[in-house]
Amino acid sequence: MRTVGIVVEYNPFHNGHLYHLQQSKKITGADAVVAVMSGNFLQRGEPALVDKWARAEMALRAGCDLVLELPVAYSAQPAQWFAYGAVAVLDACGVVDALCFGSESGDLAALDAVAALLADEPEALARDMGALLRQGVPYPSAYTAAAGRILEARGMADLAFSLEQPNHTLGLHYLIALRQLRSRIVPHSIRREKSGYNQTDVTDAAIASATALRLMIAGSGSWDAIAPYVPSSTLEILRREAEAGRAPVDWESFARPLFHELLRLSPAELAGFAEVAEGLEFRIRRAACELDEWRVSALLDRLKTKRYTRTKLQRTLLRILLGHRKEQLTRERLAAGVEYIRVLGFTERGRQLLADMRKRASVPVVHSAARGEWAYLAMDARASAVYALAYRRDDPAAALRDFRQPPVRV
Amino acid sequence: MRTVGIVVEYNPFHNGHLYHLQQSKKITGADAVVAVMSGNFLQRGEPALVDKWARAEMALRAGCDLVLELPVAYSAQPAQWFAYGAVAVLDACGVVDALCFGSESGDLAALDAVAALLADEPEALARDMGALLRQGVPYPSAYTAAAGRILEARGMADLAFSLEQPNHTLGLHYLIALRQLRSRIVPHSIRREKSGYNQTDVTDAAIASATALRLMIAGSGSWDAIAPYVPSSTLEILRREAEAGRAPVDWESFARPLFHELLRLSPAELAGFAEVAEGLEFRIRRAACELDEWRVSALLDRLKTKRYTRTKLQRTLLRILLGHRKEQLTRERLAAGVEYIRVLGFTERGRQLLADMRKRASVPVVHSAARGEWAYLAMDARASAVYALAYRRDDPAAALRDFRQPPVRV
Repeated sequence: MRTVGIVVEYNPFHNGHLYHLQQSKKITGADAVVAVMSGNFLQRGEPALVDKWARAEMALRAGCDLVLELPVAYSAQPAQWFAYGAVAVLDACGVVDALCFGSESGDLAALDAVAALLADEPEALARDMGALLRQGVPYPSAYTAAAGRILEARGMADLAFSLEQPNHTLGLHYLIALRQLRSRIVPHSIRREKSGYNQTDVTDAAIASATALRLMIAGSGSWDAIAPYVPSSTLEILRREAEAGRAPVDWESFARPLFHELLRLSPAELAGFAEVAEGLEFRIRRAACELDEWRVSALLDRLKTKRYTRTKLQRTLLRILLGHRKEQLTRERLAAGVEYIRVLGFTERGRQLLADMRKRASVPVVHSAARGEWAYLAMDARASAVYALAYRRDDPAAALRDFRQPPVRV
Repeated sequence: MRTVGIVVEYNPFHNGHLYHLQQSKKITGADAVVAVMSGNFLQRGEPALVDKWARAEMALRAGCDLVLELPVAYSAQPAQWFAYGAVAVLDACGVVDALCFGSESGDLAALDAVAALLADEPEALARDMGALLRQGVPYPSAYTAAAGRILEARGMADLAFSLEQPNHTLGLHYLIALRQLRSRIVPHSIRREKSGYNQTDVTDAAIASATALRLMIAGSGSWDAIAPYVPSSTLEILRREAEAGRAPVDWESFARPLFHELLRLSPAELAGFAEVAEGLEFRIRRAACELDEWRVSALLDRLKTKRYTRTKLQRTLLRILLGHRKEQLTRERLAAGVEYIRVLGFTERGRQLLADMRKRASVPVVHSAARGEWAYLAMDARASAVYALAYRRDDPAAALRDFRQPPVRV
């Protein structure tokens, strides 16, 4: 069975995702699709609109065959680690033949030339980035600048474009990760021109980004507004979750617990969390007490600077909210890769993939947090418990869903 | 100026407190009253109904001259440390001549004979208590049993009554603390028969315990119900605080932050907090997920056993809520006594006391948390910030009240 891997967040699953999913199968000639999906907390440092089981179900009903969880240790990270964690999961499966990702140019050869170079020079890159970060340059800019210098030194300055667009950056990091992990997975990119989605009347009327969809939901307070842009299964699942009191969830759902952490801990204790450095522990605490109300969005607005982007700040607040300490997320620990594969859901074809994985996966495949003592699995279970406390309807038993919920079957 | 010290919580200040206050002055012939008062979190491990500034004002308007804060490190503790901290504050003032406390028997000589013995044998007591605690005996029973053994060994078994009534126990510990601190403060006790408050028609109609008053408030949802039992100043302050959105506060006001802590921390991290031992870190977490809703009272009901009294459990949850770690509250640290005196409010006569204290106090006297780097002062400031998050109306600036609020002047 020829299998393609994709890396997703599906917050929520929409027609653009469906297009990417179908194209991924088509251009790779795959029979089956494995999606690595962020759990309840996403790359930009935000909670998902709806929990990981609901989003896994959206994925399966739209054509994915197997949904695996990207641990929160990797999911709420800059592109470099997000991509590394996701590729590590796909690679560990032992059954994934191809990786398909969107990219602004679609020029895979150029991107891969850059990846080859950067994958080989992690020390120079890390050293240059460290110096820039210490000068106050934000993470993505530091990466672009440091990597740009390496390209220039090798006479490849004309490829610097590959470092600039967000989807280039993720794509580039998938390629770097594939090389660093010496993976046999073959990369493919799907060309995604900037205005591509809006070029035809059909896509015009049917495609909107997940961010736009979340704004529509927040603005209208109803799910109906997004109906034209999502498969009917997405809408059905969102409605069901909302009726059960489990959605929508956003940063404000965590306002009390977050502000509690900011107030109860000393600056020294706050500085023990990942992402908290350079005096941010003092700035965050001070800013919190200058607000008019206990709102996370107001805190982010007050803290945002050129140096501290909203994404960086959200990731920082997330580490504090979830209690992720620096020593749990060191470069060494992250680079060590995944110790297990966590299944969130599967179809009948996915079940066959899982059967193959029993022989071919390089790490254990688990169906719940109850099995195994891996630190990142326990971290995900606690993150899910924290997420369950944000459900609109009290449901304490849901705090144990990571231990009790079997994978979603479609 | 002859000065009497008293130890109070005033949650809220009522007619029984007024009687005790007036008797204290009368039997000691004092001109001025210094009250050491628990801050926002009380001896039984509960948040106060209304914050420490409002309660300080109640005290001052009813006749106290100076209100000092008992640090939360001591206030939410078994009788032994609560009493020790309170007496240490009064002793450090250098201006307090007498200490007056209520007691079931009023037999000060008998109580003091026991205190003399127990103050001299801290090691034997600690050893015996440690053994009993390890066998699962609750703290107060362990103390009673261990102290009883010492009395018996000295042929003083007839004085064992002194260990049994709650107000004996506190009184006994005030006496022990006075001896351990080699204080020059002279103790006095006010006889308080069990049914004493209800013996005459006048007190019958005018006196109810603070616990009864809080139940009346919770039951009726109105302050009017308690009008017959409190001075008009208490009622006026409670109404003002409620209108400002700062009262009433109870354990349920902290439900989200508390459950968040229980869910986000690993059992090993929970075990780092004071009071959490013997596997309680697992029991609490498990019990939380078995509830029907996120209610602290439901959690306490589920956890309560013969061994784990409601008071012990409330203190444990409070340490977790406030993030007080074992190493911050060691026996050695607590026994070292107070490093500063924190003023919450004063009258004109209190101002004269403060002037005397400038010469006679053994530690610095501070009017806000902004002065000084003492760990327990910082701990109190953070506890106040956590308390402010529980106000019914959002008021982030209130999280800094410990730094900005001058003492209440009456």
